[in-house]
Formats: sequence, structure tokens, C-alpha cells
Amino acid sequence: MKKIDICLSPDLIHLYDLKGQAVVVVDIFRATSCMVTAFAHGAAEILPVEDVDLCASYGAQGYLTAAERNGLTPAGFDFDNSPFSYQVDRIKGAKICVTTTNGTVALRRSVTASKVFVGAFLNISRVAEALRHWEGDALIVCAGWKGKPNLEDTLFAGALIDMLHGEFAVADDAALMAWKQYNVASNDLLTAVKNSSHVNRLLGLGIEKDIAFCLEMDRYNVLPYLVNDALRIDETI
Amino acid sequence: MKKIDICLSPDLIHLYDLKGQAVVVVDIFRATSCMVTAFAHGAAEILPVEDVDLCASYGAQGYLTAAERNGLTPAGFDFDNSPFSYQVDRIKGAKICVTTTNGTVALRRSVTASKVFVGAFLNISRVAEALRHWEGDALIVCAGWKGKPNLEDTLFAGALIDMLHGEFAVADDAALMAWKQYNVASNDLLTAVKNSSHVNRLLGLGIEKDIAFCLEMDRYNVLPYLVNDALRIDETI
Repeated sequence: MKKIDICLSPDLIHLYDLKGQAVVVVDIFRATSCMVTAFAHGAAEILPVEDVDLCASYGAQGYLTAAERNGLTPAGFDFDNSPFSYQVDRIKGAKICVTTTNGTVALRRSVTASKVFVGAFLNISRVAEALRHWEGDALIVCAGWKGKPNLEDTLFAGALIDMLHGEFAVADDAALMAWKQYNVASNDLLTAVKNSSHVNRLLGLGIEKDIAFCLEMDRYNVLPYLVNDALRIDETI
Repeated sequence: MKKIDICLSPDLIHLYDLKGQAVVVVDIFRATSCMVTAFAHGAAEILPVEDVDLCASYGAQGYLTAAERNGLTPAGFDFDNSPFSYQVDRIKGAKICVTTTNGTVALRRSVTASKVFVGAFLNISRVAEALRHWEGDALIVCAGWKGKPNLEDTLFAGALIDMLHGEFAVADDAALMAWKQYNVASNDLLTAVKNSSHVNRLLGLGIEKDIAFCLEMDRYNVLPYLVNDALRIDETI
């Protein structure tokens, strides 16, 4: 049987052999939720970069730009890190350069995988469908918070493992723990994450609406994936 | 309120500022369970080292030697990594040099903390008591398995957090998740760990008896702690 595993932090990715694997990168609050939302509203390309200045420089090359550091948006960028900001007309056909505290780091460190998908609760069934059609093993790479594991990304991993139960074997203890964590929280994810340090950090920024939105399951049916350095969607996957 | 946190793997320890903290190093299967058992049966000192050859060389300096790699004991050492091996008369007053796959790595990486205690289910209440008397924050450092988080060390962390609830605040999501993981497993730890990859690895080595023993709570009332490079016990802590 194919195996599914979870890397709880980008700082642990050296422990995993990405070759031949399909990687699902997740940063629920809020990078990958924003990316899925942007594609669902017509974005043509998203270029994730790790550096704020590099991201800004893409503005002169026809890209819209989006930046987040520590939950906030530096001045001079087109978009912040709220999924609601991407539900606008000018997203249609746009190329967007994005940098965030955690999500873009997780993406850049996953590039050696055979496939890199972008996952969120918003498109979780679409991700599960892609993994069902994938012949190899799968690894969920959680963005976490500055290297530390976080609750919401772990819950997403547990939910995806739960969906694929019977088709993928749980590879290791971290995956087993994520699955258990999801099982005890699945009835009410919002309540489950309310004690989380990251959510409290975000609630301090006044984004209650974003939190609830990012926990919605299957609002969108798009699957962003990495092609060279950029994310696109391809309905044939 | 004082804070308690968990570092799920020695490979994440760079994310934590150990200064001023009391660190509890845990490697349930089986390094720290063995250490606690050895002190409970009269050992005078345990010197943890990372290298097998270095460990062997201490045999010529009056130390008994103990080694484990991948769950097995290389030839030429006095002790393996079973807690039952340390319940013998010759342990009394002995100095023991120890090297293991995970536990000694976690110990060596924790040396910059203000206090380094050795924890196991076998002495968990004694560890909790020491932390109650400690004025600063606390960090539980899980040995894991070759850098990856494991279930049994996480469950120990959750149990300790549970014991200290009301006296220590949960610092971060990893600690919150460990606590939750313990709460759903606490009625029957043995069954909970039976699905764990590490336990399956160990069961393949025929050490069912060790597994059950290492999950016993409060069999011993000793608290090993690091003094310079070596572990000792001190009833005045």
C-alpha cells in the first residue's frame, strides 16, 4: 500500500527523502488558503519567493504582489494575506508574486519532490483525489510557525490522512498523531483551534472572519501545483 | 504564570532559547527509562556520550559501558538498552558511560539550559515536583527517533503537562497537541502506543516486557539531572 507521512515543520524536511513523493504543502492560516482562493477566482500564476524585497521587485515585471511578515503586510504591496482580498475581479488572469513568513518557505524547501501540491481545507477533497491517482507515497509538509509545529496545519494533515484511510498506510508516528488529533477535533474545528497560540496571535490582528473561512472544507475545487518555480492549476491532474 | 513547552525533536532545538529554562529530556523507549532505573538501583553516575567508540573507551577508565544503535547493542558493552539490565547488584555505586541512538543526542543538545532533568513515566511525579519548585519556564525535549517526533515521548510530555495544569501555562501549539494526545490515550497507554511505528520496530526486537515496563508510572522516586557532563541524582533538588 502507498504510504502517507507528515513533516510537522519545514525545519525537519531534511529528514525526508522527497524524491518520488507527492508533497502537499499546507499553511492554513493563511498562505495556502489564500493561494487556493486566488486560483479559484481566476489567478493565472502564483510565484512564491522567500524575500520581501525580491517579491516587491516583481511588481515592475507585471506581477501583482502580496506580502506578509508576522501576520502583517508591509507597505507597498497589492495584497495582504487575507483570503477575502483575493476574491476580487482584478485577480482574473493575474500573475501574483507572494512572500509569507511560513508558507513560501515550506514551498521552496519542497521543490525536489516529484509533485508539489498546495493544500488547504478549502480544497482538501481535490487534494485527496489527486493523491488517489498518484502512484507513489505522499508527504504533507506543514508550514508551521517560524519552524515550530502548529495546530491548524497538523489538523489539515490529519483530515487528509483520514480521507485517504484504506488507500494510504500511515507511515510514522507524526502522521498517526495528526490523524488522532483531527479525529478528536473534527466535529468543531473552529473551537479546537481557538486555544491555539497561532490563532490567538491572529485574533489579535482582528481576522476572526479569515479564521472561520480558512476552516471551511471543499469550498473550491482547484488544485494548485508547482511547475518549475511557480504555481499553476491544471484541471487534467 | 510559568510556561511549559515541548520540543518534539532534537532537530528543532535551535528554535528554543534554553537559557533560564528547566529542560526535561525524555526518551521513553528506552534511554531515559533505563537511566531512571539505573539510578533507582544505586548507580552513582551516568555519562551520556554521542559516539560508540568514545563510549567503549570509558570502559578502560573504570566505567561500565552501555550502548544502543537502532535498538540493538554492539558487541563488547556491559549493558544493553533494556531497563531490566539495570536492576542488578553490580549497578550499585557504578559509573556508567552510555550512548544511544536518540536519548544521548537530546541530552547533549540540552546542555545550555539552566537545569537538565531526565524524565520517564517511571519517575514522572518526581519530575513534576521538581518543576513545581523551579522558578522559571520549562521545556520538555523529546528524543524522538532519528530526528522525527515519536508517540511515546509526546505522550510523556502530555502527561507531564497534564500534571502541571494550573501551575504552568501551555506555551505553544506543540504542547497543546501533546496534552490532547495524552488525554485521549491516558486510560490505556499500552494500547495507544501499539500502533506506533517505533513500538512496532521495538516489538520486532522481542522486547514486549520492556515496553510495558517503560509505561509504568511512578515506579521510582529518583530525579537524575545533569551536572557538567554527567548525570547524578540529588535528593535535595
